[in-house]
Amino acid sequence: MASPQTNRRPLVSVIGSSEADANMIRLAEEVGAVVAKLGAGLVTGGRTGIMSAASKGCAEAGGTVIAVIPGTDMDEANGYAHYVIPTGLGWARNVITGIAGDVIVVIGGAAGTLSEIAFAWMYDRPVIALSGSGGWAEKTAGQALDHRRNDVVIDCGSIAELEITLREQLRKAAGA
Amino acid sequence: MASPQTNRRPLVSVIGSSEADANMIRLAEEVGAVVAKLGAGLVTGGRTGIMSAASKGCAEAGGTVIAVIPGTDMDEANGYAHYVIPTGLGWARNVITGIAGDVIVVIGGAAGTLSEIAFAWMYDRPVIALSGSGGWAEKTAGQALDHRRNDVVIDCGSIAELEITLREQLRKAAGA
Amino acid sequence: MASPQTNRRPLVSVIGSSEADANMIRLAEEVGAVVAKLGAGLVTGGRTGIMSAASKGCAEAGGTVIAVIPGTDMDEANGYAHYVIPTGLGWARNVITGIAGDVIVVIGGAAGTLSEIAFAWMYDRPVIALSGSGGWAEKTAGQALDHRRNDVVIDCGSIAELEITLREQLRKAAGA
Amino acid sequence: MASPQTNRRPLVSVIGSSEADANMIRLAEEVGAVVAKLGAGLVTGGRTGIMSAASKGCAEAGGTVIAVIPGTDMDEANGYAHYVIPTGLGWARNVITGIAGDVIVVIGGAAGTLSEIAFAWMYDRPVIALSGSGGWAEKTAGQALDHRRNDVVIDCGSIAELEITLREQLRKAAGA
Repeated sequence: MASPQTNRRPLVSVIGSSEADANMIRLAEEVGAVVAKLGAGLVTGGRTGIMSAASKGCAEAGGTVIAVIPGTDMDEANGYAHYVIPTGLGWARNVITGIAGDVIVVIGGAAGTLSEIAFAWMYDRPVIALSGSGGWAEKTAGQALDHRRNDVVIDCGSIAELEITLREQLRKAAGA
Repeated sequence: MASPQTNRRPLVSVIGSSEADANMIRLAEEVGAVVAKLGAGLVTGGRTGIMSAASKGCAEAGGTVIAVIPGTDMDEANGYAHYVIPTGLGWARNVITGIAGDVIVVIGGAAGTLSEIAFAWMYDRPVIALSGSGGWAEKTAGQALDHRRNDVVIDCGSIAELEITLREQLRKAAGA
Repeated sequence: MASPQTNRRPLVSVIGSSEADANMIRLAEEVGAVVAKLGAGLVTGGRTGIMSAASKGCAEAGGTVIAVIPGTDMDEANGYAHYVIPTGLGWARNVITGIAGDVIVVIGGAAGTLSEIAFAWMYDRPVIALSGSGGWAEKTAGQALDHRRNDVVIDCGSIAELEITLREQLRKAAGA
Repeated sequence: MASPQTNRRPLVSVIGSSEADANMIRLAEEVGAVVAKLGAGLVTGGRTGIMSAASKGCAEAGGTVIAVIPGTDMDEANGYAHYVIPTGLGWARNVITGIAGDVIVVIGGAAGTLSEIAFAWMYDRPVIALSGSGGWAEKTAGQALDHRRNDVVIDCGSIAELEITLREQLRKAAGA
């Protein structure tokens, strides 16, 4: 039986590809800072690109960063993560990064990110896509992945909008 | 490319079964407190018994606790964990708890713990068994699981001995 | 070291959702029959809808069917599979169904299928989408999921076209 | 809903280490042949040593062999397997080989095999250990891994005894 007392802190998982241009990097750093500002911890896949930039933004704003990596060697993670969780699962670790947040935020994103969005959807996590960031964030923003849910991937067009939406979603998750 | 800068903090994974008697619970709480005292974060499987008790000991001593759970519902975790990482993998999550520490500490333990010890061994993590705690900790203490490694599961007969050994192993891991 | 001798037989993984209308069921049965006709074994996720229909089509045409299921209870599989491989991984089993064929064929498909397409793409399997079947087959047909590959999800508009393409892809895979 | 009709054939998973001496290889080949003789398919981890030898024995006796491999490249499997199921999960694939049989047979075995025995035990599969084969087969034969089950790892001292026990266990599984 779980203890009634709870130390649990909110988590946001930021997903996006390991390759990113300067604009996406800047957006990811800002998202990381927003996560810290809202008092949530950050989970990423622990690698380069969006993952590294969001981690940098969160850590520099005083937030805690957890990296869930595909391999088993902790040095695989970028240097901004405070806690590294190795999995040894290869890309199947995407099932974890796709659900290891009370809210999932998508920035850009290639096929790996797409698999994470799919898992977030299947396991009923709220998903917010930063639509100006290209990739699968752009393609899935405002869309329903299938009919099992009545909502859509929430489309946020700016960091300011993301902050408002993320605060609201974290409040909802805390109340659940 | 990983950043040369590193925020990474040491982690200790404490493994043991979800059912535990009063003596094992007390030992697990003490181990959790030792982990906090040594400045490491704690990873557990997030459930009851040894996992809950070690988490309580660590959290109450000011340490950070991460729960890596078999299911996808964060409420499955005990209330002492600060960060809950859901996996949805069932008992296959044991591959993660078995390797998600710079050092793995075994207290008591049933078949699930045994699978974690095996993964820790295969993926070359140092393993310390609190031999007075019964279960698979007792059975594997001082033993080599197979011939791939030259060392053994380190046998610690007391909390005092564990603290010395754990400090030494964390120092080694940091130097690696 | 693997034996030079090889008994290995070609496999086709058919992915698609557990809910399907009469048209999709018919298509899936025809695809299963084509797989058998081409001398390949069939892998599916072992459940209802597209998975069950493709398995029926293949088995009734004399082919061998393997079901890779999310749970651990073999009775979870539909009755057309000859061999049931339980995983206990929940939806993370999609990493397996997404890559357990020399060629992957998509029929219709909801979010689970989307995760499988993503894994097939990441792990470099040829993917054929039956575009008239709706769902993610239709949406990804003719598309590249990202820039890591130079090809696209192959768009087949009919069973006749699928048979030609599948035969060609199986020949390529055998030659590799 | 699963179809009432069932094509399902019995499966035996043979687990054991990738390194094996001549005696163990001979035993594994004989076990593979027994599996074929009893009309069951064989599942192994698809690699060398015990896995390859059991596969050879089964295939040469006319049985069907399925290899569930840690990686994603089908060429990783030994040449005796008819169907190769790649997982990309690294050693976490042991959760599958540990449960992908109606009955699990252990021959010799290092730490990887130990993790498979643990999963077989946790997921309630009958486990038979060929006790003369050394390794974890010998150490767990006749033992209970923990208190969740009332039975033990069944100790078979010879191939003849194994054949009798395996037939009986397959009959039980079919009746369940």
